Amino acid sequence: MIFNTMKRQVLFLILVLSRTVTSTKKFDHSSLRIDGRMVELSLSYCLSWRLAVETNNIKGWRTIPIQCLHHVEAYMIGGQYESDLDLIVDHISSYIDDIILSDDGLDAWILDVDDTCLSNIFYYKGKRFGVDPYDPQAFKEWASRGICPAIPSILRLFFKLIERGFKVFLITGRDETTFAQPTLHNLHFQGFFGFERLILRSEAYKGQSGMVYKSEIRRKLVEEEGFRIWGNVGDQWSDLHGQFLANASFKLPNPMYFVP
Amino acid sequence: MIFNTMKRQVLFLILVLSRTVTSTKKFDHSSLRIDGRMVELSLSYCLSWRLAVETNNIKGWRTIPIQCLHHVEAYMIGGQYESDLDLIVDHISSYIDDIILSDDGLDAWILDVDDTCLSNIFYYKGKRFGVDPYDPQAFKEWASRGICPAIPSILRLFFKLIERGFKVFLITGRDETTFAQPTLHNLHFQGFFGFERLILRSEAYKGQSGMVYKSEIRRKLVEEEGFRIWGNVGDQWSDLHGQFLANASFKLPNPMYFVP
Repeated sequence: MIFNTMKRQVLFLILVLSRTVTSTKKFDHSSLRIDGRMVELSLSYCLSWRLAVETNNIKGWRTIPIQCLHHVEAYMIGGQYESDLDLIVDHISSYIDDIILSDDGLDAWILDVDDTCLSNIFYYKGKRFGVDPYDPQAFKEWASRGICPAIPSILRLFFKLIERGFKVFLITGRDETTFAQPTLHNLHFQGFFGFERLILRSEAYKGQSGMVYKSEIRRKLVEEEGFRIWGNVGDQWSDLHGQFLANASFKLPNPMYFVP
Repeated sequence: MIFNTMKRQVLFLILVLSRTVTSTKKFDHSSLRIDGRMVELSLSYCLSWRLAVETNNIKGWRTIPIQCLHHVEAYMIGGQYESDLDLIVDHISSYIDDIILSDDGLDAWILDVDDTCLSNIFYYKGKRFGVDPYDPQAFKEWASRGICPAIPSILRLFFKLIERGFKVFLITGRDETTFAQPTLHNLHFQGFFGFERLILRSEAYKGQSGMVYKSEIRRKLVEEEGFRIWGNVGDQWSDLHGQFLANASFKLPNPMYFVP
């Protein structure tokens, strides 16, 4: 049993390494020589790069480093991304268990939509997992189809929040005019029922950074409507930083793109 | 050449896997069965756990999960930790290159000491890389010896900061009465010369969290002395969060312990 597993892991490693070699050949990255030492460096570099973006040390990046294409691909579709999400959601669930809700209906929770509730992995597969720069037209077409799958661990979290009695707000930077209907259909079709409100970016917030826009939405929820925001979950630091922060914020991994 | 490297990587993987098996046997963790599936789960879990603590999703943890001992050990001494530090320091260096300093002598930079300037890896090796709980007496003895090695990439950053003309403040939670002399000697002996001030925790801040204490020190630097804090580098989020934040903060990895 152990040896079968080890054999699988070894095969996986060989696959990853050989694909990395292929990728450096294919894209002809000038700083990469096609030899083993460079493959090692590339793997180590990509691990470091991913940690640096996830911890917000590197901000404002537009594309992933080309030598990290297969690293990010393996991360996103090889199981580790799901494992990372599962562990965070387990941790959030423990936090939720300790919250004592009041009966005034003002206990709120915020979830982001893209790559929090709904996954864009299928779309980003066609964009080489973020090696290709952001393509607003193509993303518009993708999001308009309303076929993003739910992220299973977040759907599990969502059910728990609804069951415990939280008012769940889904807040997205997607444009309201263009995406309100397909996003709502997509969420319902994927099982997200019972949330309090889906808030999209209206005309008033056009051109604002995600952080400024989402802070202003939180301000309204807190100051104008009296909600207590117990938690906020998003795949971008701009979902979580700014003003009127939740009591607890949780950053989901996303090494494919950065939203300011 | 590629195949030699692959062979090395495969051998490394087998070593890591077999050590993980040994560790689950040795520590008899109740939830771990000794078979391949569990080894896989353990590796995946430890990667997820490390990402969750580095992104501050999991806070206030006291020890590392026992099944992650060899994962954290391999991370800290196998080269990836250094790679992660190198990439962050390269990134900080680019940020520094873009700063235009004034000639009023008030451009400041903050560095933490433990596991930022000076490494405690040798100490934590004896504490199973954080599996054993914090041991104030043993750490006191270790720190009093003044033999912590410099972290090479941070020493490189330090030289750059001094050369560019920043006033560098080293701020540590170490107790002033006990550690002022050995810490100063340790820093000098390791090549940290030319900093503006080493600030240790004086009687007034005893018992405060790292975040509150360090915020108050930053407040004094900014409000009372007029410094502009361009950057702040630490291995704990409590070095970086709170009030009077630096223009840019950088979180170094540390999966061995958590300071509130």
